[in-house]
Amino acid sequence: MRNICVCQEFLTEAHKAQIRETAEALGFAPRFFTPDQLEEAKAWLQDCEVLYGCSPDLLRAAPASLKWYCCAYAGVEPYCKDPSLFANPDCLLTNSNCYGVTIAEHVVMVLLMLFRRMPEYEEVVRNREWSRELPVRSIRNNVFTILGTGDIGVNVAERLRGMGAAHITGLSRSGRERAGFDEVLPIGRLDEALPRTRNLIMALPATEETFHILNRARIALLPRGAYVVNVGRGAAVEQEPLAEALNSGALGGAALDVTDPEPLPKDHPLWAARNIIITPHVSGNMTLGYTCDRNVELFCKDLRNYAAGRPLNGLVDRALGY
Amino acid sequence: MRNICVCQEFLTEAHKAQIRETAEALGFAPRFFTPDQLEEAKAWLQDCEVLYGCSPDLLRAAPASLKWYCCAYAGVEPYCKDPSLFANPDCLLTNSNCYGVTIAEHVVMVLLMLFRRMPEYEEVVRNREWSRELPVRSIRNNVFTILGTGDIGVNVAERLRGMGAAHITGLSRSGRERAGFDEVLPIGRLDEALPRTRNLIMALPATEETFHILNRARIALLPRGAYVVNVGRGAAVEQEPLAEALNSGALGGAALDVTDPEPLPKDHPLWAARNIIITPHVSGNMTLGYTCDRNVELFCKDLRNYAAGRPLNGLVDRALGY
Repeated sequence: MRNICVCQEFLTEAHKAQIRETAEALGFAPRFFTPDQLEEAKAWLQDCEVLYGCSPDLLRAAPASLKWYCCAYAGVEPYCKDPSLFANPDCLLTNSNCYGVTIAEHVVMVLLMLFRRMPEYEEVVRNREWSRELPVRSIRNNVFTILGTGDIGVNVAERLRGMGAAHITGLSRSGRERAGFDEVLPIGRLDEALPRTRNLIMALPATEETFHILNRARIALLPRGAYVVNVGRGAAVEQEPLAEALNSGALGGAALDVTDPEPLPKDHPLWAARNIIITPHVSGNMTLGYTCDRNVELFCKDLRNYAAGRPLNGLVDRALGY
Repeated sequence: MRNICVCQEFLTEAHKAQIRETAEALGFAPRFFTPDQLEEAKAWLQDCEVLYGCSPDLLRAAPASLKWYCCAYAGVEPYCKDPSLFANPDCLLTNSNCYGVTIAEHVVMVLLMLFRRMPEYEEVVRNREWSRELPVRSIRNNVFTILGTGDIGVNVAERLRGMGAAHITGLSRSGRERAGFDEVLPIGRLDEALPRTRNLIMALPATEETFHILNRARIALLPRGAYVVNVGRGAAVEQEPLAEALNSGALGGAALDVTDPEPLPKDHPLWAARNIIITPHVSGNMTLGYTCDRNVELFCKDLRNYAAGRPLNGLVDRALGY
């Protein structure tokens, strides 16, 4: 038997049974640990060729014979930035693109909250006042620009389309066409897209290329009153000019589920910026059953691919960082 | 020429041109007033057969020769409850079913806010804390019960379906099948539907039949942790037991855009109920361009029907109240 080390917090008994059944049928023996059983997990890992985990700590303890590390998260920047984590330099790295549905629901929620002036109405209601005069916007007939056309971008586009969006522009490294987008541009054409971007949704991985991709100069390219939503990685946004643009009214509002750093320091100017909705990196966490089910499903699917010598669906290019 | 009195706050110059053009082509002469020109409007109204307005005050001044009153709102209970408002007892009454899109977006927003624990996360963020552990729910694979299958109910169902809802039950007076619903039951079967209702959306007009339709006994029929959204009329919900059920945890949360009375008194227990999202009756107000455009469009369409002697699309049965 070939061994698999599974170390996850979120697995139900049904998930374990599903993994065990899939693995055993393919000639693999899995053992299950939770992150608080790190030492036991490390011991078993010494005889494993596959690790399905979620922390660099455990990976660092893996032997040179580890052939595949399946990370339960979508963002894998720690693994790409630090090759020394892999004793085997040829070890395959996959990520888990199972967060599109829950993150897309988060995006729809915060867009509607911004359009419908909830930061302001919530202040009214907190004071037990009654005021009704703020002009609202709609997803219907509105236009959107989505940075990142992966699992998240595609799920967001699908929902905005379903609610009557008039035009959806995607931007990706390749600029390759994707279903659900009216157009996909290569990221090099971002400066050209921003002046007509009333609503910017950012769902980018953290790489060298995406660091501060929305910087001061680009924030200034957005039309007056534009909205910005970031559900990718905090470092993609230059935060001080964002706060300034919100406070001056240059931007209409922003919703950040990710910040740099996290947690955001208590004295950071973003907390008090005008019309901002901050959430503590919860848009894609593992508290939704569907997300967990899909995570396990993707691992089992790629385990079948791995056993058959086929390419892995979740394969990450460690040089590109996603 | 036959005369029309138009008295609305929200009309743009383009809207007025659209109404003037439609009217004149049909042999009608419209004049435009805003609610603060009530006396001038009343004077012109004496020679009118059509009034496109939004307040009982003006209607009360109309002559017995008024043949059609088009109300710019969807809820017309003041006109149905008080026949003395009409000098002409046979005067046609239409309402404006143009609020479905904006109210449906509100419903999607507050459902996601409840599912994604925003009342709790907003408290965390207000204190500049960082906590990520609350289990969330999703629209995807979830089940919904919608009271009212009119313009609002249909638009809500369409959006929930688009986001992956597993089952949508509608309830209406007739129980007649409607597109987008898995089943529509007559309202008499409400007690049977409630125990399997995890998410209840109420979009009912205010009539004698809908007064306190969600009363204490029916709140108790909902499964533990259910969510309640009301965007119809406040009097449809018995508010004290609702607050109690929220505070005890019997209900998971509620979002009320309508209350009884409005504004809600400052000392009302609902303000401080657990996991409640109160908005000051803004889900369907006239601050969205699309809603205003549609309002004018519906009036013009029915003006063509009226001129041709065809039935009016927005016709209200004053005895039924909608």
